Amino acid sequence: MDSGRVKELPVQENITVQKIEEEVIKDFEERMAIVIPTKDEKLKLFEGVISGIPHECLIIVISNSQRKRVDRFRVEKDALKQFCHFTHRRALIIHQKDPILARAIAEAGYPDILGEDELIKDGKAEGMIVAMLMAIAAKKDFVGFIDADNYFPGAVWEYARCYASGFSMAKSPYSMVRVLWRYKPKITAGMFFNRWGRVSEITNRCMNSLISDKTGFETEIIKTGNAGEHAMSLRLAEILTYASGYAVESQELISIFEGFSGILPIVHPTAAKHGIEIFQTETRNPHLHEERGGQHLLVEMLLPSLGSIYHSSLCGNETKRIIMDELLQQMAIPSNEEPPKPRLIAPPGTINLKGFKSVMTEHINSYSALDKEE
Amino acid sequence: MDSGRVKELPVQENITVQKIEEEVIKDFEERMAIVIPTKDEKLKLFEGVISGIPHECLIIVISNSQRKRVDRFRVEKDALKQFCHFTHRRALIIHQKDPILARAIAEAGYPDILGEDELIKDGKAEGMIVAMLMAIAAKKDFVGFIDADNYFPGAVWEYARCYASGFSMAKSPYSMVRVLWRYKPKITAGMFFNRWGRVSEITNRCMNSLISDKTGFETEIIKTGNAGEHAMSLRLAEILTYASGYAVESQELISIFEGFSGILPIVHPTAAKHGIEIFQTETRNPHLHEERGGQHLLVEMLLPSLGSIYHSSLCGNETKRIIMDELLQQMAIPSNEEPPKPRLIAPPGTINLKGFKSVMTEHINSYSALDKEE
Repeated sequence: MDSGRVKELPVQENITVQKIEEEVIKDFEERMAIVIPTKDEKLKLFEGVISGIPHECLIIVISNSQRKRVDRFRVEKDALKQFCHFTHRRALIIHQKDPILARAIAEAGYPDILGEDELIKDGKAEGMIVAMLMAIAAKKDFVGFIDADNYFPGAVWEYARCYASGFSMAKSPYSMVRVLWRYKPKITAGMFFNRWGRVSEITNRCMNSLISDKTGFETEIIKTGNAGEHAMSLRLAEILTYASGYAVESQELISIFEGFSGILPIVHPTAAKHGIEIFQTETRNPHLHEERGGQHLLVEMLLPSLGSIYHSSLCGNETKRIIMDELLQQMAIPSNEEPPKPRLIAPPGTINLKGFKSVMTEHINSYSALDKEE
Repeated sequence: MDSGRVKELPVQENITVQKIEEEVIKDFEERMAIVIPTKDEKLKLFEGVISGIPHECLIIVISNSQRKRVDRFRVEKDALKQFCHFTHRRALIIHQKDPILARAIAEAGYPDILGEDELIKDGKAEGMIVAMLMAIAAKKDFVGFIDADNYFPGAVWEYARCYASGFSMAKSPYSMVRVLWRYKPKITAGMFFNRWGRVSEITNRCMNSLISDKTGFETEIIKTGNAGEHAMSLRLAEILTYASGYAVESQELISIFEGFSGILPIVHPTAAKHGIEIFQTETRNPHLHEERGGQHLLVEMLLPSLGSIYHSSLCGNETKRIIMDELLQQMAIPSNEEPPKPRLIAPPGTINLKGFKSVMTEHINSYSALDKEE
């Protein structure tokens, strides 16, 4: 959970074990924004998650909660404000349908995430991308995502520490940390039926098949195919192609494989020169989150996730067959159909970032959880 | 979860909110031993709990696990050794039935915790007292207890931080920190039926009744009547009278009320002059632990806990009536019987501590998780 203060470690021991000192972790936390995407989440959970974010991180809440009947966004804002007031924290909170945000995005030329109503589209991926842009505007170097439905503030805290420790070990400025849960409590067969766990398991198997197929060596290296809990250096975040909806996390890896493995043309020579580093970090805490859905949700998450693998130009016939088998077994699609193609979103770095930043910098105080006078 | 690095807080804000800096917490962690009492606990749980103890704390495992059929103590020792090896930690592990320990206790003159077989008696309280003595021998200033059945390493970590932050705020060298869980998940009526929660609730009610009765003002001040997760400065630990078995945690408070409230003769004038400080700290993490027992365990825990209140010389008739009502309602005793009187254990400070220390200091390396050569 922590490796304490600065103390010298005998040199030969650094080979297998790396001690990451508190001061180093805090240095990286200061450069990191933690993004909490939320949509009508229970307030107690939301508040707990916020409280678990390490003190030095900037909090960015991207909310797509309802504003009509009950203004849940307002309630979230109040809770965040109270937390920031008592703990002297900095936080930004923005609604996905915020008109100023949409205007800034439009002016920067990013039609991929704008809807016909000229507001940001619904969807987790769109929210995440907006939050990345906010982190860039707030001059951070790293962005980490943590879902708002976590029961354990202590687990949230650990995720952020995993991100910081991963980045502290990275040699390349283009790096990513993906979290793997130590275990996921499965309390009874009826209660916690491990759905998300199965989505992960199947996604990992298919992604490993894709890699095994291309390298000719069977591998189980991918453990975090659709890790919601993950973080990136913003330099990496800017150059990746994303996918909308639940395909976003697996598409990140697919984009890296496509863009930097050397099989297809390199998409960003500077990044390729530095190399892309991916850390898969196992937590000590188990993952206990709000359980939803059932078979319906399984399909809803699995289909886009496997779709992003299936439709990659790297995906061979053997992997396609495995994906189809999985989807048919889950009765996710009719036997004569392919999984849907993910809707891709251009890298944020391709837009006019300066234009976006100048609009947002002007308004950034209005997204601050604390009013200016405080 | 953390309040970050050193930063100046405007003076007027220190009135309601206290920022406890990382460095201060670590200073106190260095002076603290965390005791894990364990008895045939699942190894995964044990290992997780160990991993949650902050890096700077000394770990003391007091085990009463079986050694015959399967040597579970040996397995615990191996797990602890491996952890300490990879993380460069210091830990002591001792079996409650260790003969050297028993001899040291006998030589120091502490018959209250010795059985007829001349070994330390079974029981959590006896184990806790032995661990306190070990903490004294290891020259620590504070001792904190954390049960080995916790599912969340992150919660363990938070408990230890609560202890450290409590002690950092204490003005008196005689201080205690007791942990109150923010909430206890009650996942289904069938699964987590909140037994320990009910023991706490009833114990708190009866203890509050005792205080209300003596002060003439109704109060709900006691929230941690039988908090297993608690810590003490060793100067306080040395002067308290304990009770055997599950009465231990409530008896601690009763001993403080009896010895220092001024209603009965003061038991330790120096401590009374400094004052005894009790911190009740609420955690952010919920408490999720191995669920055991049922009605049987409820009674087994409730009876001694209420017995310690019932038999206090401070306990008035009204409180006795409330205790009897609770016990009868739980069918814990027949209607014509009083709860059992707790078996009291003299304060560790009354024994020949020097004698104990000299025996244990000589053997302390043999209780170290790491062998000397490492």
